[in-house]
Amino acid sequence: MDISALFKITYGLYIVCSKADEQQSGFIGNAVMQISAQPNQIMVASSKNNYTSELIKTSKKLTVSVLSMDAPMELIGRFGYRSGRDTDKFSDCQVFYTDDNQPVVLNHAIAWFSCEVAETRDAGTHYLFACNVIDAVITDRETPPMTYTYFHEVLKGKSPKNAPTYQIKNNINPLPKKEEIMNQDIYVCDVCGYEYDPAQGDPDNGIAPGTPFEALPDDWECPLCGVDKTNFSKV
Amino acid sequence: MDISALFKITYGLYIVCSKADEQQSGFIGNAVMQISAQPNQIMVASSKNNYTSELIKTSKKLTVSVLSMDAPMELIGRFGYRSGRDTDKFSDCQVFYTDDNQPVVLNHAIAWFSCEVAETRDAGTHYLFACNVIDAVITDRETPPMTYTYFHEVLKGKSPKNAPTYQIKNNINPLPKKEEIMNQDIYVCDVCGYEYDPAQGDPDNGIAPGTPFEALPDDWECPLCGVDKTNFSKV
Repeated sequence: MDISALFKITYGLYIVCSKADEQQSGFIGNAVMQISAQPNQIMVASSKNNYTSELIKTSKKLTVSVLSMDAPMELIGRFGYRSGRDTDKFSDCQVFYTDDNQPVVLNHAIAWFSCEVAETRDAGTHYLFACNVIDAVITDRETPPMTYTYFHEVLKGKSPKNAPTYQIKNNINPLPKKEEIMNQDIYVCDVCGYEYDPAQGDPDNGIAPGTPFEALPDDWECPLCGVDKTNFSKV
Repeated sequence: MDISALFKITYGLYIVCSKADEQQSGFIGNAVMQISAQPNQIMVASSKNNYTSELIKTSKKLTVSVLSMDAPMELIGRFGYRSGRDTDKFSDCQVFYTDDNQPVVLNHAIAWFSCEVAETRDAGTHYLFACNVIDAVITDRETPPMTYTYFHEVLKGKSPKNAPTYQIKNNINPLPKKEEIMNQDIYVCDVCGYEYDPAQGDPDNGIAPGTPFEALPDDWECPLCGVDKTNFSKV
């Protein structure tokens, strides 16, 4: 069985939020789909480890922001690789509150839905929330949605370990080392699994190819999840 | 509420098949997603009206073929707009049978999964099948998957009426008539909702723009689902 065949399933990328008892959080999800047209229902899968799952189970409410193709890794890293238990993921975000006081992240969202949980199913590692859609808004008709494929193949994003699509090999599969950089070690981010490869550098953030990890400036941050150099380990 | 916001959810396009008691059928689905990584489980939504739903409920088995971006409308129309009750959808198809005798359509498939249904949930208009993946194969590593967006926006496909994403307005929303063709009527396919617009013609099948419906050759077929002219009605 080639389990990577499951990666051929197409998904979008979403920020799923909930608020209960004055606590709010959100996570990056890909497992969202419509399951009924009358009434309009969607299903959202959320890891039991997600703090947001606890909030959804209490509030019986959630919102879904559909991320656009131009959503930056910083936003995805903030909601995807950190826990709402110890981080205010919403700081500096543009947040709209629905009539029932549920948070909606508007940054790089092309549409959002507000939902009431009709049924919760235990799927082992995940909860499945079957939800009635009580409001739905398009905020950007031009920009296409971010797809999970684009996130993986173009942005080089990895599955957060709470995603249903996470496979352990994601994090133990080092990039192939080229002979000419055998003396330059690859470092991996302990938080999100991002691999810093000196041969590639981090041109988006001003780091030229060929820069060893040790030579990175002290204020350099993981381009995927935003933590600093002290969270990296040699592969 | 702008329910079209739900169209911003990203999906792939799949042929879902099952065989029970020597009867086999399949349908075009978009509502497929992974719901658990340990064990690997996927969820498939299927209209209660689908003949395949009956077969899945009997066999407790199904297969999913992931369609490639180059899958032709003829294949999609065959599995998406006709009923397996009165059509052999598999004729002329390349069909592989799994060890437990379940059919897998290989035409324009980039990957397929074979599944056992672990749990069936009634979602009103649809059944939700939570399935254990027992086999998974990649058959084409180069071609990208067909996305539902591409099917809608580039191929101009419409939601089959058994899809969870189907909205009634799909079929009652005639194309805008241009003044110069006010005397040329638009005809709609009773089977799949395809609209023949004389101003556009059907260039892919040799019909020039400006050709009235009445002037189409008798062997012309609906480019979406393949039925003949007698299945069309004037809008």
